[in-house]
Amino acid sequence: MLGVIMTDAALSPDETDSMLRHAVNRSFNCISVEGHTSTSDTVFLLANGAAEHEPLYDASRSALQSAVDDVAMEMAQAIIRDAEGADHFVTIDVCGARSRDDAHTIAKAVADGPLVKTAITGNDPNWGRIVSAAGYCGVELKEEDVSLWINDVLIYESGAPTEYDEPALSQSMRDNRDVSIRLQLTHGNESVRFWTSDLTAEYVRLNSEYTT
Amino acid sequence: MLGVIMTDAALSPDETDSMLRHAVNRSFNCISVEGHTSTSDTVFLLANGAAEHEPLYDASRSALQSAVDDVAMEMAQAIIRDAEGADHFVTIDVCGARSRDDAHTIAKAVADGPLVKTAITGNDPNWGRIVSAAGYCGVELKEEDVSLWINDVLIYESGAPTEYDEPALSQSMRDNRDVSIRLQLTHGNESVRFWTSDLTAEYVRLNSEYTT
Repeated sequence: MLGVIMTDAALSPDETDSMLRHAVNRSFNCISVEGHTSTSDTVFLLANGAAEHEPLYDASRSALQSAVDDVAMEMAQAIIRDAEGADHFVTIDVCGARSRDDAHTIAKAVADGPLVKTAITGNDPNWGRIVSAAGYCGVELKEEDVSLWINDVLIYESGAPTEYDEPALSQSMRDNRDVSIRLQLTHGNESVRFWTSDLTAEYVRLNSEYTT
Repeated sequence: MLGVIMTDAALSPDETDSMLRHAVNRSFNCISVEGHTSTSDTVFLLANGAAEHEPLYDASRSALQSAVDDVAMEMAQAIIRDAEGADHFVTIDVCGARSRDDAHTIAKAVADGPLVKTAITGNDPNWGRIVSAAGYCGVELKEEDVSLWINDVLIYESGAPTEYDEPALSQSMRDNRDVSIRLQLTHGNESVRFWTSDLTAEYVRLNSEYTT
């Protein structure tokens, strides 16, 4: 993956660096198809200064940051929408964590869990596979600290499965390419939004038949 | 997964505990189907003392340790041989690491990498997917520190692919259920042996159609 973002803004190298890091931490660093990164995965922000403006004030710098964030997000999500063999585009929100690192670790474990991915492929709102992935990722966690929504339906509350219309929720997963998973913890105020794809037989076919 | 090993040896609780940990660290803690552990994964060693022997000397204790190790290994490998939809049983040796933890981290990243698994499914001796999994797992590593064998054929040496008979190696992967991967590092003297399965369309079918 090679990503290039260009602007004619006049930014110092330090401004460019911090603007790109901010954008990448909320976009390219929050996606995963199957967890496999490449030595060539790189994102550039090129600022040639052709606009020849005065040094940026806070307001204009933060408008530019928003624009760079938006472009990075669109590019990162496009990778997931284009993931090999994917049937679903999955948005994972982890909220109420002790730290952003904790939230990221949980989100990535859920995203990369093949049993989570295949459950989504099968349109199965399987709380057990999602909650256990959060449980094995290394973040200290008790069952009762966790509540879970899929497509805004609460299916697991404070450590126990809820009563809900399971066929309707499964049908909504079948009818929509986009699926949302929200894990709410009781630990703190930090959160992360993460994106992933599901795991299909077509993914296996593409990656077992292709030879370098 | 619930594993139970029984002996009529007369062991103290401390002896039993340390004997089981030794066995589990080289068996159940060195297998992975897809990385997903369960809250119920448990191994017991039960020693009822019915043999009523004298306290064990070093030689007899180490004979018993070997027997417990062997049983634990056989049980752990049986899980991998029985993995859902698996076409291949893969033994991964990581040698020459700085620490056993480093070797374990690399072995587990290679084992759990879906692109590594699907390459094996496709009988593709794909050095790039294996070496890059070692590269992204967090252990400090340069390409030139790594050499790689598949089924005892050297395919990547000190950071560069070798010349070898690729069709013959691919055929040996097609003809044999068992595949061996050996990663040799230049960092130290620690090593780990790890076992995993490949990733097939049948794995996806089983885990997307099954609902809890």
